[in-house]
Amino acid sequence: MSAVFPLSHQNFIVPLSEIAMYAARRRQAKLAKPPGSLGRLEDLSIQLAGIRNTLNLSVQKKVLLVFAADNGVVSEGVSSAPQSVSRIQAENISLYRTGAGVLAKQMGVQIQVFDVGLKEDTRDGFIIPVKLISGTENIAVGPAMRKSIAATAIHTAYLAAIAAGEEADAVAIGEMGIGNTTTASAVLAALLGVDPATVTGRGGGLTDDMLQHKIEVIRRALAVNRPDPKDPLDVLSKVGGLDLAAMCGAFLGCAHARRPAIVDGFPCAVAALLAMRICPAVRDYMIPSHASAEPGFRLAMEALQLKPFLDLDMRLGEGSGALLAFPILEAACTVLRDMATFDDAGIDDSYLAEIRAQEDRP
Amino acid sequence: MSAVFPLSHQNFIVPLSEIAMYAARRRQAKLAKPPGSLGRLEDLSIQLAGIRNTLNLSVQKKVLLVFAADNGVVSEGVSSAPQSVSRIQAENISLYRTGAGVLAKQMGVQIQVFDVGLKEDTRDGFIIPVKLISGTENIAVGPAMRKSIAATAIHTAYLAAIAAGEEADAVAIGEMGIGNTTTASAVLAALLGVDPATVTGRGGGLTDDMLQHKIEVIRRALAVNRPDPKDPLDVLSKVGGLDLAAMCGAFLGCAHARRPAIVDGFPCAVAALLAMRICPAVRDYMIPSHASAEPGFRLAMEALQLKPFLDLDMRLGEGSGALLAFPILEAACTVLRDMATFDDAGIDDSYLAEIRAQEDRP
Repeated sequence: MSAVFPLSHQNFIVPLSEIAMYAARRRQAKLAKPPGSLGRLEDLSIQLAGIRNTLNLSVQKKVLLVFAADNGVVSEGVSSAPQSVSRIQAENISLYRTGAGVLAKQMGVQIQVFDVGLKEDTRDGFIIPVKLISGTENIAVGPAMRKSIAATAIHTAYLAAIAAGEEADAVAIGEMGIGNTTTASAVLAALLGVDPATVTGRGGGLTDDMLQHKIEVIRRALAVNRPDPKDPLDVLSKVGGLDLAAMCGAFLGCAHARRPAIVDGFPCAVAALLAMRICPAVRDYMIPSHASAEPGFRLAMEALQLKPFLDLDMRLGEGSGALLAFPILEAACTVLRDMATFDDAGIDDSYLAEIRAQEDRP
Repeated sequence: MSAVFPLSHQNFIVPLSEIAMYAARRRQAKLAKPPGSLGRLEDLSIQLAGIRNTLNLSVQKKVLLVFAADNGVVSEGVSSAPQSVSRIQAENISLYRTGAGVLAKQMGVQIQVFDVGLKEDTRDGFIIPVKLISGTENIAVGPAMRKSIAATAIHTAYLAAIAAGEEADAVAIGEMGIGNTTTASAVLAALLGVDPATVTGRGGGLTDDMLQHKIEVIRRALAVNRPDPKDPLDVLSKVGGLDLAAMCGAFLGCAHARRPAIVDGFPCAVAALLAMRICPAVRDYMIPSHASAEPGFRLAMEALQLKPFLDLDMRLGEGSGALLAFPILEAACTVLRDMATFDDAGIDDSYLAEIRAQEDRP
């Protein structure tokens, strides 16, 4: 894999800072509250300290990276929306007019939209052109793309995420690509070795018949391409897409830049799993957000050992769910940074000795 | 009950506006996204439209009401923290130094702290004095307070919430009262007719032995007082507390003022249930927030038919979890108000006809 991955992510992605996490844990224990009573906000603050290697945490500057691409498999009729919607909505996201767009505007999040392989050329909006090919091939009849194209998409987004990390305290990752719940299901079924029926859902909105057809198309794609489940790049290039490849690279780039990377919905979670299969250390830089309504999402998150904290039945994509994690990240930073300790608060905390002793017991 | 409730909430609390909800539903269907893909954000925007009777929604001005009181039952040793913590932390909340305090500051939420029955007089901070008695009696040996005191606490907070609603688009409701998970468990067990063991948890942090003792104290309180499960004021005054009474009144006041009221953790959910038992229409004005780790919380929310959207294992109280719902409310408003429609976005939405037809089928 060395020829395909010249950047050798393994050497650039380091484990979280144990020293910062120790200091964060120690401070959490001093804050004026019952031990553990802030639950996962405490865990998040410790993870963020480890990622950023500081206790002076902040999530003021926020970026959403959206990777737009087209998927050849739409010619099989697996999607309810026409393919032109990828290009139109990529433009509208960059103009802050879509679901993710208006949420980002409200929350002060900068959006960067990348054309990593849209079929149509963009006509409007502010889109960063890094198009490699004009959409992938139909995975139901052959590989989506050459392996070198997939690797280039990963590296392009890797660099884009490092550049974004220079400007931002935290990064959300999203996609726009009609047909990408089909490719995401195919990749996930291949990686986990499960039948496509268990990981395939209605995407943007399919009828019962269309869902059954989608499952059969994915079965055919796996039978035709026979991806090697142990080789993430093989799986990605044969039954994946350029949007998945780019999101995978963005997760690796965020870890390189030591920035928290927020996982959005189903295609994004599958891209995160691909990144973890390429470099396991990347996983500790990931932050879950919402629980997508797509059935494969839960399996992908289990494989990542990530547990979403938002339950909103969303399935829009575009990074819309990931955006809603920013306020929670901000809350985690604020608690660690600004809360009074027992000393500050004028409370004698000796009454906690018994509880702490019990928690220390195995 | 008319003598006790001169305000006659029933007459002032109206159902949500059907016209506004119809208009909100119609607009959601036109927004450029797969139908239903924003999940519970869509439901929330429709509920908010019904509450505020407008589509021009906003959650810019935000208030957290914190009701502080002491509970006589702490003399039974049911709490890990000393009683003085109620007063000290009420002061610290009002100075924005506690968990809820720092979160509110970060999120631009104004905090109003009310002393509805602290044992000690406050010495610092900015606390609105509406103290009726200096803490309740020990529910394990007799009633917590006279019925008229409970009714006055409800009405005081009812007025406070209406006044807050004048200034704010949405209101979060929280508490500070050492011992109030014990009274909340007693009230919930009485209202639902279940054994205290099923609704009682570790509160601020109890050991196994202390938890068992807490359950037995609650059983004794119910046996001694025999509250009438059909009379919420009887239950509240016999085995409840002034913090619960005030939160109950605040929910009624928010509904009167047609403002969304965010439910925080376990004691707050029990107060919300009391409010619903007094006036069922109040329930539609309630917004869930996080899922508290206290075991009784789930039962209270089921009785309210509310489903939390945040899963953070928090159990701090003070309204800290409710605060985290504000960004989600803002997101719901933003989507309905600012997203482009299919027309605006330049997308022909005729491809959705089949999906919509399927959804219209019973």
